[in-house]
Amino acid sequence: MMKKNSIERISSRQNPYIRWVISLRKPEQRRTEGFFTIEGHREVSRALENNFQVEMLFLMDSVAFQTDQIGRVCYLPPEIFAKISSRENPDGILAVASFPPNSLPNRLPAGVLVLLAEGLEKPGNLGAIIRTAEAVGCDLVILANPLTDIWNPNVIRTSQGAIFGQNITVCSNSEALSFLRKNNIPIAITAPDAQRDYWDAFSSDSLAIAVGNEHHGLSEFWRGNADLSVRIPMCGKTSDSLNVSIATALCLYEFRRTHP
Amino acid sequence: MMKKNSIERISSRQNPYIRWVISLRKPEQRRTEGFFTIEGHREVSRALENNFQVEMLFLMDSVAFQTDQIGRVCYLPPEIFAKISSRENPDGILAVASFPPNSLPNRLPAGVLVLLAEGLEKPGNLGAIIRTAEAVGCDLVILANPLTDIWNPNVIRTSQGAIFGQNITVCSNSEALSFLRKNNIPIAITAPDAQRDYWDAFSSDSLAIAVGNEHHGLSEFWRGNADLSVRIPMCGKTSDSLNVSIATALCLYEFRRTHP
Repeated sequence: MMKKNSIERISSRQNPYIRWVISLRKPEQRRTEGFFTIEGHREVSRALENNFQVEMLFLMDSVAFQTDQIGRVCYLPPEIFAKISSRENPDGILAVASFPPNSLPNRLPAGVLVLLAEGLEKPGNLGAIIRTAEAVGCDLVILANPLTDIWNPNVIRTSQGAIFGQNITVCSNSEALSFLRKNNIPIAITAPDAQRDYWDAFSSDSLAIAVGNEHHGLSEFWRGNADLSVRIPMCGKTSDSLNVSIATALCLYEFRRTHP
Repeated sequence: MMKKNSIERISSRQNPYIRWVISLRKPEQRRTEGFFTIEGHREVSRALENNFQVEMLFLMDSVAFQTDQIGRVCYLPPEIFAKISSRENPDGILAVASFPPNSLPNRLPAGVLVLLAEGLEKPGNLGAIIRTAEAVGCDLVILANPLTDIWNPNVIRTSQGAIFGQNITVCSNSEALSFLRKNNIPIAITAPDAQRDYWDAFSSDSLAIAVGNEHHGLSEFWRGNADLSVRIPMCGKTSDSLNVSIATALCLYEFRRTHP
């Protein structure tokens, strides 16, 4: 697929590259091929800055993008670019990149912050959570049994490209648990009936904050294996919970406040 | 419009009530009439708990809803209910309620937390922010010059009905500022170049946290009138900002942590 400094122009919707890019909208196709799409100037730039392997770049006619990291560049007229875009107002930049390696690190140093997210299903929530995790300086995000594909275009978009700067591993619940146990990282969960407030609980050197599915929360697996249960105070008269991306942000930043 | 304990069945899509409910999808129509729709069991229940004036209740055939607070109840077959619903999987409950009064309180007591949100335009963000504000026990939410209608169905849905438990006033920037000044409530904003971290800055008895539009942030009006500028640390290598609903939640809960 790579060919150095090749620039060509595509003028037919039937071009095989166009059909290929469109086929990558399907998660199964992405998994089978190991490629995904990245749309937008900021997002493609952040992927390149973080050494993602970009195979091809598609530019709408008259759009410029400076890089020497991409072998093949194709120019498209706006009506064909619209066919490959997932956005309402595309900026005319779309890349195809290969999946990065996916494996848990061998061992983490002391004093790390890990986010363990189980069974997330909304791409927008996953992207928002990754954006916050990267901002707070999370050392590792573990996605245990996710119900959405991490390389879904909406995850990339709502993360604003932060996904490319964040260490992320997808694995099973049991792999995640043995990794955390091996590294002696205590696991904290939020629960409405916990005794300790989250702002008075994160005293350990390292911590894994575990958050669950949007509808069902964490499974019994993680609730049973938690070392610490904390409460986010509900002080109003109506709300009994927070959006998962909000609860995650509060816990992550509270760890950072106490571990600057 | 009110008629006590009236129950009827609608079997035509041309029924004037059906056309009326559909017309309320338009913000101008809501503003002109002073009515809006509330969909979902939880949402309608929370509106009633908080004494919103519900004019009519539409129920899909065979759906039950216990209340003696609503004068007129209409049953509809599923295909007509689908026409008035804004949801993909409606639960068969939709109410029409009248706008609550909209005015700033005369005076606030000491020790209050106010959220000032300027120019928000995404209903999902507005709903998420209101849900968090209600959860943290915010005394007042002021929406200054909002670009989305507060009674948009998506605001209500993403707030999960918390909107009905939260004091909210819509007004202009200048009305909001004179209200805050009159009540001696200092105004805090977030800025990337601020000197103080947000977790080390909220020492005043009362506070108004000001957040801005999703794309442009706060206007010069609020940046110029702020009493306190705080920084949310960005500790990663890629992210340079947070989603507005996340930044808002961090500041609101930090005030609550230090003012339990």
